[in-house]
Amino acid sequence: MAANTISLSISSTSRNLSSLQTRVLIPPRTICFPLSSSKSKPGELSLSSTTISKSRVRAGASQLVNEPLNENRPMTSPTIVEVDLGSRSYPIYIGAGLLNQSQLLQRHVHGKRVLVVTNERVAPLYLDKTVDALTRGNPNVTVESVILPDGEKYKDMDTLMKVFDKAIESRLDRRCTFVALGGGVIGDMCGYAAASYLRGVNFIQIPTTVMAQVDSSVGGKTGINHRLGKNLIGAFYQPQCVLVDTDTLNTLPDREMASGLAEVIKYGLIRDAEFFEWQEKNIEALLARDPAALAYAIKRSCQNKADVVSQDEKESGVRATLNLGHTFGHAIETGFGYGEWLHGEAVAAGTVMAVDMSYRLGWIDDSIVERVNNILKRAKLPTTPPESMTVSMFKSIMAVDKKVADGLLRLILLKGPLGNCVFTGDYDREALDATLRAFSKS
Amino acid sequence: MAANTISLSISSTSRNLSSLQTRVLIPPRTICFPLSSSKSKPGELSLSSTTISKSRVRAGASQLVNEPLNENRPMTSPTIVEVDLGSRSYPIYIGAGLLNQSQLLQRHVHGKRVLVVTNERVAPLYLDKTVDALTRGNPNVTVESVILPDGEKYKDMDTLMKVFDKAIESRLDRRCTFVALGGGVIGDMCGYAAASYLRGVNFIQIPTTVMAQVDSSVGGKTGINHRLGKNLIGAFYQPQCVLVDTDTLNTLPDREMASGLAEVIKYGLIRDAEFFEWQEKNIEALLARDPAALAYAIKRSCQNKADVVSQDEKESGVRATLNLGHTFGHAIETGFGYGEWLHGEAVAAGTVMAVDMSYRLGWIDDSIVERVNNILKRAKLPTTPPESMTVSMFKSIMAVDKKVADGLLRLILLKGPLGNCVFTGDYDREALDATLRAFSKS
Repeated sequence: MAANTISLSISSTSRNLSSLQTRVLIPPRTICFPLSSSKSKPGELSLSSTTISKSRVRAGASQLVNEPLNENRPMTSPTIVEVDLGSRSYPIYIGAGLLNQSQLLQRHVHGKRVLVVTNERVAPLYLDKTVDALTRGNPNVTVESVILPDGEKYKDMDTLMKVFDKAIESRLDRRCTFVALGGGVIGDMCGYAAASYLRGVNFIQIPTTVMAQVDSSVGGKTGINHRLGKNLIGAFYQPQCVLVDTDTLNTLPDREMASGLAEVIKYGLIRDAEFFEWQEKNIEALLARDPAALAYAIKRSCQNKADVVSQDEKESGVRATLNLGHTFGHAIETGFGYGEWLHGEAVAAGTVMAVDMSYRLGWIDDSIVERVNNILKRAKLPTTPPESMTVSMFKSIMAVDKKVADGLLRLILLKGPLGNCVFTGDYDREALDATLRAFSKS
Repeated sequence: MAANTISLSISSTSRNLSSLQTRVLIPPRTICFPLSSSKSKPGELSLSSTTISKSRVRAGASQLVNEPLNENRPMTSPTIVEVDLGSRSYPIYIGAGLLNQSQLLQRHVHGKRVLVVTNERVAPLYLDKTVDALTRGNPNVTVESVILPDGEKYKDMDTLMKVFDKAIESRLDRRCTFVALGGGVIGDMCGYAAASYLRGVNFIQIPTTVMAQVDSSVGGKTGINHRLGKNLIGAFYQPQCVLVDTDTLNTLPDREMASGLAEVIKYGLIRDAEFFEWQEKNIEALLARDPAALAYAIKRSCQNKADVVSQDEKESGVRATLNLGHTFGHAIETGFGYGEWLHGEAVAAGTVMAVDMSYRLGWIDDSIVERVNNILKRAKLPTTPPESMTVSMFKSIMAVDKKVADGLLRLILLKGPLGNCVFTGDYDREALDATLRAFSKS
């Protein structure tokens, strides 16, 4: 293997998903997947999407376990994935109805003051519920909130300042806790605000989109965009916990649902072929929000993410592989205009481009190219960039990508059998040019 | 001692200046102080200020050692104070003419790209010299620079964005190095920019004021002001090294010189009575920029700062004691208008207020009050706040101080013999009110 290349394969010793700590808070209530009741063999959950409605998300999840009533609601025990980072370790709680379990959140609140950062779309749906979860039976805690405009185009310094303004006007001190309630934009902005406010306060992630639940809320990458590039200003800053209440997906628009699946598909391609094969059988079930399929996909995605982040918190190596398709994708988001395409949509088209380039380099066979195109189309994601993107736009925006080192653009490319990738600047420039020409105007 | 109080005394076991690593890069060229040529006993350097001109700073420093010529300049060996923070440890180089010793800087530059952040006042004086030091004999390194407006009132988000704009437009990648060339404002802003750019790049501090050389460049506190309070947005982020070229003080205005001495005096009061006694004998020599006196005061201040920071990097306890007078002082800076008073001027008045309150509490005797007033007046620093400050202004601004915890304002107050202080929220509120009334309008 050439220097300047990091290889990550499913067979490498560094990857050991089975050794990941996945514990359950109340052991007898463990949710196991695949569920015996689903009548499927492992890796073979196949459900007809036509029989599943959105309303089944809560119902399905509630059916997973038989539990005593608590506060008149059925309580499910969360699945817990640990992110192992020494003194900065934290749990990801995954389950239906977790926002009803106030003790989960309250154990991670430091001090008596909380600031919930959310947006105009999420606030009417979940802000009251979140405030209730933070304060129920805990009258000493007071909660402030700041409601930001919704969308990637507001992930900027001006909007971030509204969080600081609110925190300072509310006289929040170093012992306060920030809570991010929303999708990836809210999580990234709230996390960066928490990293910077009084030089760092505690924070908690409550992701409400698939994108945030499977990817952006885990691992401590926080930040904002610059007009010239995505996520160029920020911090590595880990939360106290991540609380994934899968019920929040009930209200997620279809386009957002599909966008999140782009990141789920990514984990399969870069390091978990078995998961990819499972997705090929279950992609329609995921789109149709089958609760069991979603719970499994979220848990397995978080396990993959936690495993990678634990090995390389600050992206000096293997963590970069989580950015498959993102260098092309960020160029689309920046060039086409923040918020025009959702992040996952841009990543999907970017993934097709990275796979195309990998094939041009002779690193993968054409069956992988075909399978990637197929699954993304089934997920209702784009497989080509917007028509207005040109070769020169891609080149100029990619030049400020964070993975450029000493002027050399390093990319995540697939290499070998399904589930294997490399992070490398050691590739034939002609293959990159050919891919850019094939997918955009010159 | 009451709970919620941290005591730091000269006799405490945690303080052991003599055990601090103070090494010299090239041992035979060690600068020892007190100098045998100064004909003074330790702690008794007394020089007549009337015989010392500014131009002697360089000359004086050059006279310290006999050295071979290198690149046609006399080379002095730096004194080195280590800041011991495990994997984030770094050296502080102190000496005259260090900007001429390019190897000192170059060993700490990572990658091939450097961004020098400086201001309109410092750039004409030292930017070319700094670029030369970074590039001499090292043609692979290219240097960009961004020149900010000068002054505390520009320590804000809008000005910080100019640093990001320049870095991104220059396509600097994660392997670049930011260099702060200037006083405390530049160091704090450049450090926060380095902490945030691409989620963190390397940086180097080249402080050019006494304030920055003895205090703000050491210890990794970075940040910007908010209109409602000082340094409320920032990060703990350590530099690769701090390079203190005492020659840069040649061009420092008298008012800036005095401002820096407020922090020097602080070290004596909170933890180093012997240093305070030395200052009482040498304050005029310092004001007159006697090179040997300055070199000693800078080294001993850095040793004190390094010792405290090594014990408590993120200010969970003892590090807060470095803020003697700062809670009152920040209120003055915020209330009176950023930049109207220099930071050290506000700290000086704030120190008098903290000492007054300590006396009202019965924690120190009146001789300390008198000595503090005397030395600050001799240093040509203010000992009362601006007349426009009111009790309510102090109270409302101090309520957002970073040392407030769960609504309780903790202060650094002197207690016991000279050189002893406490960091506590356990004090009689009436003493605080009495001090505020004594020093400002109601």
